[in-house]
Amino acid sequence: MVSIADVAARAGVSPTTVSHALSGKRKVSDRVRARVESAMQELGYVPSRSAQNLAIGRTRVVGLIVPDIRNSFFADLTHGVEAAAIRHGYNVILCTTGFDHAREVDYLAMIRSRAVDGLIYAAGAPPTNSQLGALLGDLPLVLVDEEVPGASAPSFVSDNLAGGRLAAEHLLGLGHRRALVIAADGGLVSSDLRVAGFRECWEASGAEPPLLASGAFTEEGGRAAIGRHPEVGAADGPTAVFAVNDLMALGAIGALQQAGVDVPGRVSVVGFDDIPAGRYAHPRLTTVRQDVDELGRRAALALIAALADEPAERTDQPDRHVLPVSLTVRQSTAAPTTDQGKVVNRG
Amino acid sequence: MVSIADVAARAGVSPTTVSHALSGKRKVSDRVRARVESAMQELGYVPSRSAQNLAIGRTRVVGLIVPDIRNSFFADLTHGVEAAAIRHGYNVILCTTGFDHAREVDYLAMIRSRAVDGLIYAAGAPPTNSQLGALLGDLPLVLVDEEVPGASAPSFVSDNLAGGRLAAEHLLGLGHRRALVIAADGGLVSSDLRVAGFRECWEASGAEPPLLASGAFTEEGGRAAIGRHPEVGAADGPTAVFAVNDLMALGAIGALQQAGVDVPGRVSVVGFDDIPAGRYAHPRLTTVRQDVDELGRRAALALIAALADEPAERTDQPDRHVLPVSLTVRQSTAAPTTDQGKVVNRG
Repeated sequence: MVSIADVAARAGVSPTTVSHALSGKRKVSDRVRARVESAMQELGYVPSRSAQNLAIGRTRVVGLIVPDIRNSFFADLTHGVEAAAIRHGYNVILCTTGFDHAREVDYLAMIRSRAVDGLIYAAGAPPTNSQLGALLGDLPLVLVDEEVPGASAPSFVSDNLAGGRLAAEHLLGLGHRRALVIAADGGLVSSDLRVAGFRECWEASGAEPPLLASGAFTEEGGRAAIGRHPEVGAADGPTAVFAVNDLMALGAIGALQQAGVDVPGRVSVVGFDDIPAGRYAHPRLTTVRQDVDELGRRAALALIAALADEPAERTDQPDRHVLPVSLTVRQSTAAPTTDQGKVVNRG
Repeated sequence: MVSIADVAARAGVSPTTVSHALSGKRKVSDRVRARVESAMQELGYVPSRSAQNLAIGRTRVVGLIVPDIRNSFFADLTHGVEAAAIRHGYNVILCTTGFDHAREVDYLAMIRSRAVDGLIYAAGAPPTNSQLGALLGDLPLVLVDEEVPGASAPSFVSDNLAGGRLAAEHLLGLGHRRALVIAADGGLVSSDLRVAGFRECWEASGAEPPLLASGAFTEEGGRAAIGRHPEVGAADGPTAVFAVNDLMALGAIGALQQAGVDVPGRVSVVGFDDIPAGRYAHPRLTTVRQDVDELGRRAALALIAALADEPAERTDQPDRHVLPVSLTVRQSTAAPTTDQGKVVNRG
């Protein structure tokens, strides 16, 4: 049986560092983490529960809650979590909540009674932190993709603020000066940060503040937002759209095309996530790429490490792990057309 | 509280018929089923567990096992199951098995200990029927999408044989006479039936028997199959490809395009499922459409009805419910080009 000490020796670090690299309780450098992970792989290390853990009824099953499995972002996140969990001898049971608050609370209550060792939670319509504590008790918890304000659990999220900025910089660089931002209903932190990053960068450039719309995190949400803003693509209207996820961006493109507005000829559209459908779309979607496999993997490893150690302690200042994002430029963005450029100069 | 007798009175049928319509244990006509379902909806009927069921520990949670959540066919199937279950007051926990036999057995064993009332099982690499019985005991079971040979449980599947025939008829009608069929590894009944329907129709036309390849039920599986058959699109080679699912068809198109073979100019490709990615693809994919929402809904309703009645009895001849499929013609199929037509006439 390979121990954490063996991994530490192989990686040339202390056992405590190995534990930190796995649990995410303390920061370690990417270089050290990479060394620890290759040592784990070389030795075939599997975090082992102690006899004591067995005695108190550990089940080697973790729960995963996601809002929408038909959004392939969450299917990929599930795959990332599951691949890491299975490699470490854990099974995963999945619950999907449809961004429905009542259902989300119901599943949180259910998961605790389902005899799981811990929970990885991608919130869609989360309860408050105190409700969350009441629902989950001391069940080890890791948040992924979405933060729950005030929750005393480690979280693994993408750099949503930087992602919003990347989208704005790209559109500004192409010459756009008037934008519509499509946010998600429900005050999700991820959406708020993507919008904030976009606005900050957009307004810092001196361009007029973007229009704001919101809708469900779905194609229909994006489509409906465009329906409520017929000025997009019209004279003096926005020439650029930033949607806080790819499904909304694809819905927005569909609605614009249906209204006879060429993308990117007349309006450029940027999404967020980099789901496969964006690569198939017409035009292929420019988007902010999240490393969804890595998000799932890191969240799963953190939970598993916490389970392998002592029961995770809830702290007031849990670690927040922010993974980098990047911009993938494809065909849905271009410079605004000349007549619109003139309008911009007049404006 | 609305009872099954109220639903029966409203629908103008006997309570036994309502029970059969729900459980799928006996066949009822589509017209009667429709009447029962509208009566249920009008009255807000929710199958209720008896006090006896409560006493023996029913949990109002059902398990769902699917092979691959990144294939949106299964994400949609999950959505169909879950929507119906939640409407009837049941929660769903989902396990995904990656078409891996050991993992599938592991999850089947786990689900039974997870305190669920019953299981809906879309097999990917199933155990034998006797193993399945040993794993699940008397846990109520409904099979969906994939049959397990010999299993004593009701099943809800698409008309895979007819789907294979539809694909063959379409390609023959366009003038194709030489085809490659890409089946799924692992001897799945669904794949076998799709291939059998295709071959039967193809060979009945007098065309030469199709070449057979097989691979994983993924884009990579389709891509690899084309890699092993460079004669596809070459002179005297197949001018048509039928893949037993859409992901394989999309992978095949990608591999053909990469090899400089135009689709559908030189080779036509037909898939099976009608997943959203096929609508976005270049060219848009001609495919056999499964009514995946209905598959999930019917399977969930059958399990829930069995739970609401007495514990389901396993019979030697359980009902097999076959849902119709249809052909969706898009841009990935066309008549073979003239020079290939000449080859056909010479052959």
